Amino acid sequence: MLAKKYTAVAGQSSVIREIFEYGKKRAAVVGADNVFDFSIGNPSVPAPEMVNETAIRIMQTEDSCKVHGYPSAVGYDDTREAIAANLNRRYHMQYHKNNIFMTIGAASAISLCFRVLADYGQDDEIMVCAPYFPEYKCFIEGAGVKVTEISADPKDFQINFPELESKLNVHTRAIIINSPNNPTGVVYSEDTLKKLAAILEEASNRFGRPIYIISDEPYREIVFDDKTVPYVPHFYKNTLVCYSYSKSLSLPGERVGYIAFTDEISDADIMLGTIGAVAREMGYVGVPSLFQMVVRDCVDALSDISVYETNRNILYKALTQMGYQCVKPDGTFYIFPRCLEEDAENFCKRAQKYDLLVVPSTSFSCDSHFRLSYCVPTKRVERALPLFEKLIKEYRG
Amino acid sequence: MLAKKYTAVAGQSSVIREIFEYGKKRAAVVGADNVFDFSIGNPSVPAPEMVNETAIRIMQTEDSCKVHGYPSAVGYDDTREAIAANLNRRYHMQYHKNNIFMTIGAASAISLCFRVLADYGQDDEIMVCAPYFPEYKCFIEGAGVKVTEISADPKDFQINFPELESKLNVHTRAIIINSPNNPTGVVYSEDTLKKLAAILEEASNRFGRPIYIISDEPYREIVFDDKTVPYVPHFYKNTLVCYSYSKSLSLPGERVGYIAFTDEISDADIMLGTIGAVAREMGYVGVPSLFQMVVRDCVDALSDISVYETNRNILYKALTQMGYQCVKPDGTFYIFPRCLEEDAENFCKRAQKYDLLVVPSTSFSCDSHFRLSYCVPTKRVERALPLFEKLIKEYRG
Repeated sequence: MLAKKYTAVAGQSSVIREIFEYGKKRAAVVGADNVFDFSIGNPSVPAPEMVNETAIRIMQTEDSCKVHGYPSAVGYDDTREAIAANLNRRYHMQYHKNNIFMTIGAASAISLCFRVLADYGQDDEIMVCAPYFPEYKCFIEGAGVKVTEISADPKDFQINFPELESKLNVHTRAIIINSPNNPTGVVYSEDTLKKLAAILEEASNRFGRPIYIISDEPYREIVFDDKTVPYVPHFYKNTLVCYSYSKSLSLPGERVGYIAFTDEISDADIMLGTIGAVAREMGYVGVPSLFQMVVRDCVDALSDISVYETNRNILYKALTQMGYQCVKPDGTFYIFPRCLEEDAENFCKRAQKYDLLVVPSTSFSCDSHFRLSYCVPTKRVERALPLFEKLIKEYRG
Repeated sequence: MLAKKYTAVAGQSSVIREIFEYGKKRAAVVGADNVFDFSIGNPSVPAPEMVNETAIRIMQTEDSCKVHGYPSAVGYDDTREAIAANLNRRYHMQYHKNNIFMTIGAASAISLCFRVLADYGQDDEIMVCAPYFPEYKCFIEGAGVKVTEISADPKDFQINFPELESKLNVHTRAIIINSPNNPTGVVYSEDTLKKLAAILEEASNRFGRPIYIISDEPYREIVFDDKTVPYVPHFYKNTLVCYSYSKSLSLPGERVGYIAFTDEISDADIMLGTIGAVAREMGYVGVPSLFQMVVRDCVDALSDISVYETNRNILYKALTQMGYQCVKPDGTFYIFPRCLEEDAENFCKRAQKYDLLVVPSTSFSCDSHFRLSYCVPTKRVERALPLFEKLIKEYRG
C-alpha cells in the first residue's frame, strides 16, 4: 500500500553492491586474502592528516553551538569563499561565494541540477554518455525527466558525437559528463570539449534555449602522468560544475560537495535561488557543519593518491601484456578492459570462479567490457594478476 | 530557462528567516544587546561534552577510511542497533536494527515518508494540523502530493477532530503530527492520541488502505515539569517515527536523524526497502559517517536543556500576568501567545518597533497568534519583558 513508483524497486540494490556483498560472504568461506574484490569504488587512502587535526582543533577551540549549528542553506560564506579562491587560483576563474552552493556530496549536487534544469513529468530530456555511473539514471528518472542515452565509443571512450548530434532536440535540457570518467578512467580531451561546446552552442541557438553541461567532477584530482584535466567552464559557458570531497580528501562518508557556476551562465541571476528552492523542497536543509569548516581550512589539501597511479601502471601493463584489450586510464581508480566474450555478465561470472570480482559493463550501459576498481592495496592487484592470466588462458583454450 | 516549478519560488525564504535577517541588520544599528530576536528555533545550548570527546576519540583511534568512508544507505548496523536499544529501554518496544533507517536529519526523514506513502502527481493527500512548521507544506508539495490542512483549535492546540473527520477521505495517505509541537510547545495528550488512533483505524478500514501517522519528534526530550511525552507507536500501529539529534544532542548542523517503525506496521516487509528506494532516487546516498558513530556512542546523552524550562517559566508567568493570553507550553522552546489584534502580521510589525522580533502565526497557518522562540540566553528574555509590557500598554491605550 506504499507509493507504487518505489515499491516496484524496493530493496533493489545495484549490481555493484550485490557483487560487493557476495565478496563479503565469499571472504567468510575462503578468507579475505583470497577474494579479489575489485567491485566498489571506495577511496582506499586515508584523509590527509590535516583533516582530522583541523576537525579536532575546531571542536576544541570554537563554540559548540556554532560548530554544530545550522549552516545557511547555501553553505557557510567563508567555506564558499575558500572554494571560490581555490578554483580561481587553479583555473584562473573569477568565482565569488555566490557562485557556489554547498551540497551533500556530488550525488545531491547532480540531483539538484537535474531538477533545476528540467521540469518534472514534462517532455524534458537529460543526455548521458555511455558508459556512465548507473545512479545517473536513477536520479534523472527520480526527477521525472527522460534519460537520453548516447552509446559508447569503445575506441577511446571519448564522446560518440554522431549519435549525440542525432539525438539533440528541442527537449534536451542538459548533458551530464564525467571526466575523469567512471568507469573508463578516461579524461575528455580538449578537442572533445571544444567539439561538444560547439555542438551545444549551435543546438542552443537553434532551439532558442540553453542546453547546459552538468560536469560531474569528483575524480578531478586523480589524474596520472602529470596530465591536467581540462576545466569544462573554459570551454562552455553554461556549465554547472558538481564536485565532492569524497575522493580528493577521502571523505566520502562526510557528504560535502558543491555546485559552481560563473556569472556568465544564461540564468546567472536566478541560479543560486533556484538551486536553493529545489534543495528546500528535497529536505536537504544544509550540508554537515563541522566538515564544511574542515573543507574551508583544508581546501588546498590532497590525500596521497599515488597508490592509484601505481595500481593503474601495474594493471595496465600486465593486462595488456596478457592480451586483454583496454583503453589506458588517465585517472580515477578504474580500468575498463574488453571482456573475452561478448556477454559481459557471463564473463564476470567466469571471472568469479577465480574469485576475481569485477563489474559487468552492462551496469554502465555498455556491452562487452568490465570495470575493475583498483582503489585497493597494491598487493591485492599483484596477487590477482596470475588469476587474470589463468582466466585468459581458459578462454584461449 | 530553468524549471518553472522552482524559478517561481527562487530565492524565496521563509518569513522566519526574513525576520532573522532583519534582526542582524538592526543589531548593526542599535547593538546586538538591544535587539530581542525571538525568531529562530536554533538550539542555544552546547552539545554534551561527551559528543566532541567521542568524535575526537574516534578520529584519533579508528581507521580514517572507516571513519570517513561510505556508510551503507540504511546506516551503520551498530548505530541502528544502539538507537533500537535506546528506544526499547525507554518505551518498552521491540525494535531491531532493520526497523531503523538513518536519515540526514528529520527534514529528510519526513521528506522520505511523504514519498514512501504517497504517489507523485496522483490524488494522494497528506494531512497537517495547524499550527504547523511551514516546511511541511514545501516538502509535501515537493513530493507532488496535496496538503490537506486541519485548522487549529486555539483553546488548547490539541487536534481539531471534527474538521479532521470531515476531511478524511479515500485519498488520505497519512497525517503528520509534531508533539511536542512547533510552534505551540504543546504536547498531545494520551486522550488526543487515543482519539486520533480510533478515527484513523476506522477510516483505514472504511477506505481499505492504511492511513499512516508520521510522527515528527525532534523535540521529544525537551519537555517540562517532569512530564513525559506519550510515545505515538503505543497508540497506533501504523506510525513512522521521525527523529533528529538536532535538539537532544544540539547537533542541528551535523544532520543525523532516523525513521523508526515496528514489525507490526501494515507494510513492514517492504518498508525499509521502499524508504531506501526513495532515498536512492533523491540523491541522499547516506548519513554523515563520523556523526553516525558519535550518535552510536552518545545515544543516551542529553544536552543540558534546563535553560529552556527556565525561560518558559519566566515568559509564561510574566506574559500572562501582563494580560497576554497563551496556552502553557509543555515543552520545546516555543510559546505561542494570542496577538493583541486580529492581524498577526500587523501585531508583529508593531512589536518590531520595540525591537521585539517574533513570528506571525500566519507562517504556521493559524490566525492571530505569534511564536516566540526562547532558545536564547535567559538575560535576553528578562530584558525583553518591559518591552512586552510597553507593547500591551500601547494596545490598551
